[in-house]
Amino acid sequence: MTQIWATSPEPGSDLHLDLDLNLTRGSAGGVRAALIRALRDAVRTGRLAPGMRLPSSRTLAADLGLARNTVADAYGELVAEGWLSARQGSGTRVAQRTLPGRTTTARPAVQRPEATHNLHAGSPDLSSFPRAAWAAAGRRALANAPAEAFGYGDPRGRVELRQALTDYLARARGVRTDPERIVICEGFAQGAALLGRVLRRLESERSGTPRHLAVESYGLGFHRDLLTAAGLRTVPLTVDRLGAATPELASMPDVGAVLLTPAHQFPTGVPLDPERRTAVVEWARDVDGLVLEDDYDGEFRYDRQPVGALQGLDPERVAYLGTASKSLAPALRLGWMVLPGRLVDEVLAAKTQAERHPASLNQLVLAEFITSGAYDRHVRAMRLRYRRRRDRLVAALAERAPAVEVSGIAAGLHAVLRLPPGTEDDALHGAAWLGLAVQGLDEFRHPDVPAGDAALVVGYGTPPEHGFSAALDALCQALEAI
Amino acid sequence: MTQIWATSPEPGSDLHLDLDLNLTRGSAGGVRAALIRALRDAVRTGRLAPGMRLPSSRTLAADLGLARNTVADAYGELVAEGWLSARQGSGTRVAQRTLPGRTTTARPAVQRPEATHNLHAGSPDLSSFPRAAWAAAGRRALANAPAEAFGYGDPRGRVELRQALTDYLARARGVRTDPERIVICEGFAQGAALLGRVLRRLESERSGTPRHLAVESYGLGFHRDLLTAAGLRTVPLTVDRLGAATPELASMPDVGAVLLTPAHQFPTGVPLDPERRTAVVEWARDVDGLVLEDDYDGEFRYDRQPVGALQGLDPERVAYLGTASKSLAPALRLGWMVLPGRLVDEVLAAKTQAERHPASLNQLVLAEFITSGAYDRHVRAMRLRYRRRRDRLVAALAERAPAVEVSGIAAGLHAVLRLPPGTEDDALHGAAWLGLAVQGLDEFRHPDVPAGDAALVVGYGTPPEHGFSAALDALCQALEAI
Repeated sequence: MTQIWATSPEPGSDLHLDLDLNLTRGSAGGVRAALIRALRDAVRTGRLAPGMRLPSSRTLAADLGLARNTVADAYGELVAEGWLSARQGSGTRVAQRTLPGRTTTARPAVQRPEATHNLHAGSPDLSSFPRAAWAAAGRRALANAPAEAFGYGDPRGRVELRQALTDYLARARGVRTDPERIVICEGFAQGAALLGRVLRRLESERSGTPRHLAVESYGLGFHRDLLTAAGLRTVPLTVDRLGAATPELASMPDVGAVLLTPAHQFPTGVPLDPERRTAVVEWARDVDGLVLEDDYDGEFRYDRQPVGALQGLDPERVAYLGTASKSLAPALRLGWMVLPGRLVDEVLAAKTQAERHPASLNQLVLAEFITSGAYDRHVRAMRLRYRRRRDRLVAALAERAPAVEVSGIAAGLHAVLRLPPGTEDDALHGAAWLGLAVQGLDEFRHPDVPAGDAALVVGYGTPPEHGFSAALDALCQALEAI
Repeated sequence: MTQIWATSPEPGSDLHLDLDLNLTRGSAGGVRAALIRALRDAVRTGRLAPGMRLPSSRTLAADLGLARNTVADAYGELVAEGWLSARQGSGTRVAQRTLPGRTTTARPAVQRPEATHNLHAGSPDLSSFPRAAWAAAGRRALANAPAEAFGYGDPRGRVELRQALTDYLARARGVRTDPERIVICEGFAQGAALLGRVLRRLESERSGTPRHLAVESYGLGFHRDLLTAAGLRTVPLTVDRLGAATPELASMPDVGAVLLTPAHQFPTGVPLDPERRTAVVEWARDVDGLVLEDDYDGEFRYDRQPVGALQGLDPERVAYLGTASKSLAPALRLGWMVLPGRLVDEVLAAKTQAERHPASLNQLVLAEFITSGAYDRHVRAMRLRYRRRRDRLVAALAERAPAVEVSGIAAGLHAVLRLPPGTEDDALHGAAWLGLAVQGLDEFRHPDVPAGDAALVVGYGTPPEHGFSAALDALCQALEAI
């Protein structure tokens, strides 16, 4: 095995590949396949870390003595497979995908060593899942289900759940729909992937160049990757203290859709300014565009009247995505899309055979859980619990780390802690040292925008109730030190 | 709107497309896009029926006055999207996909009008789902689940279920594995799609031409389509009264994998001959190949000792796929893959972000259902019930339609009724006339093999218990008439 170090354009980051070129030099396909395999193995085993920039195809080709096209082809294949990601101006990087674990064959996936305290954003308190109420709803749903409910099922999901959601979302979130425009999905990821495929198809049918998808300049890289994998290019839209700067869209003629978190911007926590709400809907009407509304934690509001869903402003211009992952638990893998009428068949047609039949039983349980009032009761109980945690967070920081500005706290399960400039990495290292899992704001930044304010994103909803005090104490310790 | 009729090569099947060429004639992309849209709409609305052959690209181009490449490109795009299918020697046809319903926008999907009696193969008796036992297992599973079970979950599925399956499959099916080589999936479809993607990738990495996937010459077109969609070409392997003719594989150098139903060939019902079992495993070792074992109804055996899973012969050469869809209900969307060690990470890496986290709760319930013994009790009860139905079917046909030969009845939930030559269509029409949903053997034929014996495939497991007598009576009536 010849070991080859190629020099990356970033100083100090040589690229080591296990390539046996003697064995494969015979044919171009052989070399290309060997290069793909070597790169894939390096990514899969975690040797090349997510986000790492690779040398340009020109540089790597020169280092390996290969044709540049061979390297470019290999990169292209690995981008298509999702191992690498390529963005204009940012070069080729190792994709931010969740790895299947740095495993050797047939060994247990190595779990990320559990931190003692977990304040990662994006999870509810899993220990608060309403087990007894869910089991009771399950018993009733099973007893009342018609026999056909045990079959393969409707690609749009059970009508019982679509009806329950129609009523609940109208009442609680101001969503205007009917059951025929709802498609049940397995959480936001599947819904966004389906809508991404539909958008790509519709845009490719337009004459001229397919338009891009605008995303908030801070958001989940995982969501951007989903949409990139569907063949869309994501372009960033500024996020400031009024939320996403939707008026910018008017000067972005190459954009045909936008993904927003209007109720509670993720991660900054701001609700979208009312004028900007109007602006984005008007923009969508003007340019025949689509707004994707990610209403991931719309139920959890504390200090002011609930902000209704953007979808209520124009159900034909906004595709609304909701989920039970925050209000109940990710393990349910239940989400819902409320679609403009014209997109219902498009979304159903975009489903692969393996996606066509969402599991029905849990849908019936959730329908029963909602219509029986158990969902409202659970949300109210959790809202109270999360609000108390938020108040304790604010009070503890005011006392122990007064230089930290807490924001984004009118709603949701997380807060943003603005830090003195340049201290984000120090805070993260301090937290890690104390066994505290927490994320920096920079982790959520779109790769096309420059680094911004130093801040931590604190998921105060994540720990179990008995673990919150210790997690909060660790956080304060980490911030006292900076 | 200009309406254009293009003449199809099959007499009498003109192809009508709503194409406004004046509007789109400006650019080649515009014409291509308009053609794609028109064809897609025609398929989506059901105007072009599944299986319908389209005119050749040459003919359609001549009829429309377009460049042949424009038409060929449009066909290619629609094949990639799954609307059309193209096979060597068979031309381009409307794909056999399940349509999202012949709906207009935002209207309820039109359900296929229910036949009075349903003897379609491939479904268990949905009215026999063990509701009370499942609810009880659910209550216990919820009460005992650790808090982390409500989170996003392991991409391979809950370890509790993988452990329960390891023990159960070893005991009941002779499968040799450990929990680390099991990946939980949402039924056969998702598992096969994942394995198809892995096979395609591995084959594309081999030097030389990627090898094809052999499938039984009679099987589910839906399964063939799944694998075709993954980028594999399926080639047929003869099925006779000893099952799939696996010795043929030795003379098929362009084949690198084979999908089999060894326990109970679907749909002919024959178990794979012991020598052929050995032959296929030896072939896989010789050519570095893979056997995909679809063990969809291995639990339901009546007249002889259970045939163990092929996987037991060589766990490193056989990927075993099982499902709860027949033993319990399709609505659970639970299946399992038992993988060769080298494929575990490959399969996990092939999952998209939307597939990464299988819903955990039902997995915990199934694990509890299996370990508590409820699964064995249910299978035994259903085996008895299905066996009685089979015996009644055989007796009724012997009396009322003695010319019909019943076969494939040593196991499973369906039988094959061999008919006098040339009478399959008559029998199907007679059945339809009597409100009886039943399928002909020809429906399952691989498109590359010539038509074979006349036969019906009768899913006697499908009707509810109270409906079986009437369905059987209708079947006998239909067969008395031929």
